[in-house]
Amino acid sequence: MDLKKLIRDIPNFPEEGILFRDITTLLKDPNGLAFAIDLLCDKVRDLDFDLVVGPESRGFIFGVPVAYNLKKGFIPIRKPGKLPYKTHQQSYSLEYGTNTLEIHQDAIEPGSKVVLIDDLLATGGTNKAMVDLITRLGGEVVMVVCLIELSDLKGRELLTDIVVETLLQY
Amino acid sequence: MDLKKLIRDIPNFPEEGILFRDITTLLKDPNGLAFAIDLLCDKVRDLDFDLVVGPESRGFIFGVPVAYNLKKGFIPIRKPGKLPYKTHQQSYSLEYGTNTLEIHQDAIEPGSKVVLIDDLLATGGTNKAMVDLITRLGGEVVMVVCLIELSDLKGRELLTDIVVETLLQY
Repeated sequence: MDLKKLIRDIPNFPEEGILFRDITTLLKDPNGLAFAIDLLCDKVRDLDFDLVVGPESRGFIFGVPVAYNLKKGFIPIRKPGKLPYKTHQQSYSLEYGTNTLEIHQDAIEPGSKVVLIDDLLATGGTNKAMVDLITRLGGEVVMVVCLIELSDLKGRELLTDIVVETLLQY
Repeated sequence: MDLKKLIRDIPNFPEEGILFRDITTLLKDPNGLAFAIDLLCDKVRDLDFDLVVGPESRGFIFGVPVAYNLKKGFIPIRKPGKLPYKTHQQSYSLEYGTNTLEIHQDAIEPGSKVVLIDDLLATGGTNKAMVDLITRLGGEVVMVVCLIELSDLKGRELLTDIVVETLLQY
């Protein structure tokens, strides 16, 4: 199955000059959704790990079914103010300004092996901030797996020493 | 398995006087997560339906695994400005002010049967707005299924003529 055929290109979203890869057309297709999740599972099935971590919101879409399928727990990383218990924060730079992510302080026991799942590897800034949060809690990121990689943005270069796998490269 | 034991109570979140039911402790537990998703699937397994719809962000957590498990497509409902294609909007009242949700205009073909999945049935305002969006596209909501119901808030009374099922009542 060619998953790229199920992804819709939206020009000039979220701003002029950006070609947005719209995954909602893939999610809507029962076979496409199942195939994408099965491929993500295949990437990590044979790894020794304890938890899946995924970020709000689109990381939830792919991270939870993988956790469910492989009988792991799921840890959400969220935008500030959304997690109700004590959190750690990590800020990172965007093209204009900064963004901040949070994780619960008790989300990950030290020594836990973690797989990080997201929909997109772009500049790598978000992914790197998440790796930093997991590492701060004593977790070890054994793999970062993303559905889509925007190769020109060289996000992998920010994720040194981490195994990064992606399903679709643009 | 008693899922309530896996849900953490956080007093005074997001504001003074609110007792927040924190599902992150359930998500973290591999058996709890799998059990909750399996129970949600059981609610709709024998229904005739085409699509699962779930709202950003916590609706994604439970909606996508159910869609995956039962080989259905998944349609996200999101906050304004997040969906890249043409959308319909629905606003609804909160205690103070209003909130708005969006769905892609081509998300649901007329006549489609839809199951709506979310983590929480509280006042029912969010759920009702989602039912309205689905109905506006010509879809039929055959069931609303939520993990948690805050029974005192009487959300069911807003969802007249719709079958509502919840796993945990508080």
